[in-house]
Amino acid sequence: MLISELGGELALIDRLRRPSRNPKVLVGIGDDAAVVMYGEELLAVTTDLLVEGDHFSLEYFSPRQVGWKAMESNISDLAAVGAEPRYALVGLTLRSDSSVELVEGIYEGIYASADRCGVEVIGGDTTHGEVLVLAVTLFGEVGREDLLLRSSARPGDRIFVSGPLGGSAAGLALLKAKVEGFEGVKRKHLEPTARIELSRSLRGRVHAMEDVSDGLASEVRNICLASGCGAVIFADRVPVDPEVREVGEILDSDPLDWALFGGEDFELVYTVPEGVDVPGYEVGRMTEGEGVYLEDKEGRKLLTEWGYDHFRP
Amino acid sequence: MLISELGGELALIDRLRRPSRNPKVLVGIGDDAAVVMYGEELLAVTTDLLVEGDHFSLEYFSPRQVGWKAMESNISDLAAVGAEPRYALVGLTLRSDSSVELVEGIYEGIYASADRCGVEVIGGDTTHGEVLVLAVTLFGEVGREDLLLRSSARPGDRIFVSGPLGGSAAGLALLKAKVEGFEGVKRKHLEPTARIELSRSLRGRVHAMEDVSDGLASEVRNICLASGCGAVIFADRVPVDPEVREVGEILDSDPLDWALFGGEDFELVYTVPEGVDVPGYEVGRMTEGEGVYLEDKEGRKLLTEWGYDHFRP
Repeated sequence: MLISELGGELALIDRLRRPSRNPKVLVGIGDDAAVVMYGEELLAVTTDLLVEGDHFSLEYFSPRQVGWKAMESNISDLAAVGAEPRYALVGLTLRSDSSVELVEGIYEGIYASADRCGVEVIGGDTTHGEVLVLAVTLFGEVGREDLLLRSSARPGDRIFVSGPLGGSAAGLALLKAKVEGFEGVKRKHLEPTARIELSRSLRGRVHAMEDVSDGLASEVRNICLASGCGAVIFADRVPVDPEVREVGEILDSDPLDWALFGGEDFELVYTVPEGVDVPGYEVGRMTEGEGVYLEDKEGRKLLTEWGYDHFRP
Repeated sequence: MLISELGGELALIDRLRRPSRNPKVLVGIGDDAAVVMYGEELLAVTTDLLVEGDHFSLEYFSPRQVGWKAMESNISDLAAVGAEPRYALVGLTLRSDSSVELVEGIYEGIYASADRCGVEVIGGDTTHGEVLVLAVTLFGEVGREDLLLRSSARPGDRIFVSGPLGGSAAGLALLKAKVEGFEGVKRKHLEPTARIELSRSLRGRVHAMEDVSDGLASEVRNICLASGCGAVIFADRVPVDPEVREVGEILDSDPLDWALFGGEDFELVYTVPEGVDVPGYEVGRMTEGEGVYLEDKEGRKLLTEWGYDHFRP
């Protein structure tokens, strides 16, 4: 049976997952990062694979940008659970004809991101492979009272996002279509920046949190499923940069689709109890029941698309 | 510049590495696993990439064996520093035509090895790629007094290995040459078992330790470089299974070469002070000075080959 016949990535992971009976595992497979008790402390860990041809192309990514993005996507995962990133392991497969300059460029990006966030690269594995793969694993500290899970949303919470969405998907569309200009939008795809400072400032003030790696619709759906709630997203409140709207017109695409289903913006989405003041854009509300609805001038419709899935049927 | 022109894998890693000034990093890039202080505890971490076509072929590996070997090679890295494996993250890239059965088989092997060693799989990343890559990251606990580094050998230490060597390389040679039979030797390559129980029993009794992932010569060289010593290996004491000798005759290969340079046996090599009784095979001695010498009936010669390097000039 092909993975697409099973129903795609999430169905596959559901099938492989084994429930944990270990009380030291606070968060296992399923959230942005796993969290375990380690001695008296909590340890948050996450890993992301970037595959050439799937997650990046060296036709438009510089090696430095590849390294940077691999780190920032992991930092974003830790930011999403309220953790402070500390240490990284870097796995790298290189082709026989890979140049030293390519590897040095990748590491330059890794170190630049690591320095930005106070992370130390402590090990890894460099080996051969016919496709360039960058596998970063990141460890961080998280205080027990700071831990932010996707399962902690409650009906009535307001849903916020930390910044404009859809920029990364618009940037990728520009790069694929070889459109000149719009360097700022392209940079959203090539050099995303994880919202680690914002994550620090939100600790203790929000209920549930995720990072926008797969599009707003998918992230809100994850929060709903984990928290046993529903949600409504207000279409006209989803923040989209004017430049991204312009790109939408040029490429005949709907920028709202990029925001909802595009992914890789690495902004944060968080649910906030009434009366708590937080920075960001209020885009929706958690509700009783289930399902994620999009509300626009024509009314409410149930969202059934969940962003990009490599193995979608 | 190509990596081969720089001098191969080790030269590349030396060029990329940044020295750590963080006192919490007890072991950084270079040993089998990295070790950091985490709260009041020590945390040992390691990661290994297995790439289809480079590290395994599905022509002779079952999916279960791929998953098993990925876990055991990481467990071996933690065993080598005296750590107790606890948690794993599993990164996996799959082709579009990968079957659910393939992934289930890989996970069956991962879980079997995890259960054997008391490891829990707590997260990971599953994504698409044109080559199957399995990236396992393993975390473990290590007591301050149990930490076994490659830098702790002293001149006069006896060098031990935990079991017969060369079996994995002989097995691979049999599989590549499509020779029937010798299932036990082939299994050394397909289903290696990390020496975690032995590692537990050696804690506190040995000076330096490594696992044999790149061949005995390379491991002893690493210990020498890190400890500022030399070493001599006695050719006639290197343990090689009778079946492996037989394979050597059939394939017209020297089994001692497999033992010294073949790798992936995942036995342990450890240096032991005089007067301490340990299990295993005594194969050599640490010396003053530098260089690794092989002593046989014809005398001592300096070893200058160090096992397999994907990017060797």
